[in-house]
Amino acid sequence: MIYLDNAATTRPYADCLEKAKEYLIDKFYNPSALYAEGYNLHRELSETRKKIISHVANVNDFGIIFTSCGTEADNHALFCGGRRGNVVTTLGEHSAVYSCTARLKELGVEVRFAELNADGSVNVKNLLGLVDANTSLVSVIHVNNETGAVNDINAISRAVKVKNARTLFHSDGVQSFGKLPFRLAQTVDMYSLSAHKIGALKGTGALIKRKNLVIAPYIYGGGQEEGLRSGTENVFGIKMLEFAAQKKYENISSDLEYVGGLNSLMRTLLDGGLFKIISPENGSPYILTVGAYGVRGETILHEVNDKGLIIGTGSACSSNSKLRHSRVMEACSVGGELIDGILRLSFCPENTQEEIHAAAEILNFTVRNRRDIMA
Amino acid sequence: MIYLDNAATTRPYADCLEKAKEYLIDKFYNPSALYAEGYNLHRELSETRKKIISHVANVNDFGIIFTSCGTEADNHALFCGGRRGNVVTTLGEHSAVYSCTARLKELGVEVRFAELNADGSVNVKNLLGLVDANTSLVSVIHVNNETGAVNDINAISRAVKVKNARTLFHSDGVQSFGKLPFRLAQTVDMYSLSAHKIGALKGTGALIKRKNLVIAPYIYGGGQEEGLRSGTENVFGIKMLEFAAQKKYENISSDLEYVGGLNSLMRTLLDGGLFKIISPENGSPYILTVGAYGVRGETILHEVNDKGLIIGTGSACSSNSKLRHSRVMEACSVGGELIDGILRLSFCPENTQEEIHAAAEILNFTVRNRRDIMA
Repeated sequence: MIYLDNAATTRPYADCLEKAKEYLIDKFYNPSALYAEGYNLHRELSETRKKIISHVANVNDFGIIFTSCGTEADNHALFCGGRRGNVVTTLGEHSAVYSCTARLKELGVEVRFAELNADGSVNVKNLLGLVDANTSLVSVIHVNNETGAVNDINAISRAVKVKNARTLFHSDGVQSFGKLPFRLAQTVDMYSLSAHKIGALKGTGALIKRKNLVIAPYIYGGGQEEGLRSGTENVFGIKMLEFAAQKKYENISSDLEYVGGLNSLMRTLLDGGLFKIISPENGSPYILTVGAYGVRGETILHEVNDKGLIIGTGSACSSNSKLRHSRVMEACSVGGELIDGILRLSFCPENTQEEIHAAAEILNFTVRNRRDIMA
Repeated sequence: MIYLDNAATTRPYADCLEKAKEYLIDKFYNPSALYAEGYNLHRELSETRKKIISHVANVNDFGIIFTSCGTEADNHALFCGGRRGNVVTTLGEHSAVYSCTARLKELGVEVRFAELNADGSVNVKNLLGLVDANTSLVSVIHVNNETGAVNDINAISRAVKVKNARTLFHSDGVQSFGKLPFRLAQTVDMYSLSAHKIGALKGTGALIKRKNLVIAPYIYGGGQEEGLRSGTENVFGIKMLEFAAQKKYENISSDLEYVGGLNSLMRTLLDGGLFKIISPENGSPYILTVGAYGVRGETILHEVNDKGLIIGTGSACSSNSKLRHSRVMEACSVGGELIDGILRLSFCPENTQEEIHAAAEILNFTVRNRRDIMA
C-alpha cells in the first residue's frame, strides 16, 4: 500500500515508540503526584517543553501548553483570545478554527473573514483592512492544509500589531511544525501544533504561547499546564511528540529538499491533460493538491485505493461535513469543472521515488479510464 | 516498590497494550478518511462505543463522546449543560468539576453547593433543597475521590427530576467506572469516565450521555464524535479503554471482593493509636483515606516513599493548588489535628496481601517514629 495522505495523519515512528515505551510501562506515574516517581516525571516534562519550543522559538520568550490535539489548541486560542470586539481570520482556515467562529458569533463576537488568493494563501491587504481598534484576535493558518500555500505569519503578525498593538495573533501551525524551517517572531502570540502529523501520536497537541501572554484556561480542573489546561498529563504522548519533533528538526532541511523532489516528480509524472495542479510552486512541498477534470475526487479515491494507493480529497477533518464542495477550494476560486475532482496527495520523507512513479501511474490510468467510460 | 496510589493513575495492562498495539502501528490511519483503511477504523470504533457503554448502560438509550480525559468530559458537561439559571453541585467534587464553577459564575450562572456528610457523601436533603425551577444542571460525583464515599446517583437524579424535570443530571464517574457494579438510570443524562484510572492510558476519557440529549460541542472543528467533540480520534487510546474496561467488567465482582479484603486488612493492620480511618465502611473499597494524628501527610508521603511505598495525600489533581488543606476534607468536617495528616491509600486488584502487610508496617513505623522525634 502506497500511503500519500500524510497530511491527514502519519505512521508513528518505530524508533520513537521504542524510546517512549518506558513512559507507557515503567514510568506510568501521575506527574502531579508528590512522591519522587511522580515529581521526576514533572521535571522531565519541563525539559521536554524547552526542547519542543526550542525548535521554533526562543525558550526564554515562549512557553507551551500541552493539549489533546491541534483542534483543542486552536479552540483554546480562539475562545480565550477572541472574547471581545471582533476576530479577524481567513477563508482558508482548517475547520478547527473555522468552526469556532460560528460559536464566537453566538457569544456576541463579530467575525471577519479575509479573502484568499488563488493558491489558498490569504490576501494580506484585505486581511489588514479588516483589523481595527476593536480587533481582539487575528488567526491565520501557517500552511494551508488543502493547498500547501504558506502564509508569512511573522510579517503578517507584525503588520497586524502596527494596526493594533493590543490585538493577539494566533496561527494554526499543524501543517508547518516539523516540516518547514522557521522561527516564531515575538509578534506571534500563539501557535498550534499536532503530534500525529509528524510521526508521533493522535491525542497529543500543543499551543506554543508567548510567556508573558495572559490567557484564560479552556479546560478547568487540577491546574496542570500552569493552570491553563487541566487533566493528567499524557506523558507517553508528550514524550513521543518530543522524540518525533527532535527527529524532524534534525533532518528538516534535507527532508524538505527530498520531499520537494517527490513533489516535483509527481507534478512531472501526472498527465497534464487529466490533472490541473492547484498547489502553488512555492508552497509546502509536503502537500500537492490537484484537480481531475470532469471526474469526482471521491470516485478516484476509492478506485486508486483498490489498486493499492491511499490519497485524500482534501481535509480528512471535513469528511464529516455536509458541504458538497470544499469551502477552501471555493474561496480559492477553483472552477466548476474541477471542484468535484479535488485530490490531495501529501508526502512524508519515508515515501520513495518508486512509490511516486507507481502512484502517478495508478492516478493517470484511473482518471483516463474513468473518463473513457464516461465519454 | 509498593504502589498504593491507584486512584491517581494505574499501570497500563500489559495484555491490553499487546492487543491495542496494532492500532498504534499498522492501523495508524485517520478514522475520518474516506478510503477503506480509514473507514474500517471508523466502523471498528462504532463497535467499541457500544462495548464500553454496555458495561454500565443500555446501548439503545446512551451514546458516548470520547474525550481526552475525565476532566474534559466534566468541563463539557458543566459548560454545555449549565448555561443558564443556576447549577447545583456539591462540596465534594473533584477539581475537574469544582474549578468550572468559578468560570460559570463569571458567565452569569449562579452556582449552589450542597453540603457533605462526614464521610464525604453529599447531604441529599440539602442538595434537593437547592434545586428549583431555574436549575439547569445538577452535578454529583459518583465515588468521592478523596474518601471513597458512594453517592446513589440513580436515586439522587430521580429525585432531582421530580423537583424539575428539565434539569440535566451529570455525574463524575472517574472513580466508579470499572470498579463498582452499577447501571445508569435514565435520569442520569451524562456520566464522565477516565481511562488511565482502570489500566488504560492517560489522554483518553469519555462522556457517556443519553442519546436523545441535545448538547452543544465543547471542542469545535472537523465534526468528529457526531459533531460534539472535534479532533482526530485517538484510536490507540480508545481501543486501550475498550480492552481495559472489558477486563475490568469481566472480573468486577471478584475484584470488588478481593479489593474489599485488602481494604479491610489495611484497616486492621494500621495502628489505631496512630491513624484515624476517615473513609466510610460502606464506600468504595478501592480508596482508604486515613488521618495520621499530629503528623503532616506530605512528610509521611516522602518518608514512606524512601522506604519503597507509594501513597497519596488526597487528589493528585489538587497538588497544584495553593490551598493548604483539602477543601473536601474541610467540608467533611475533618478536625484540626487530622487535616494536615491526610493520607490516601488506593488499591488495584493486582495489589497483594503481602504488599498490604508490608505497607502497613512501613506506615505504622514511620508515623510512630516521626511522633517519637517530635515528642
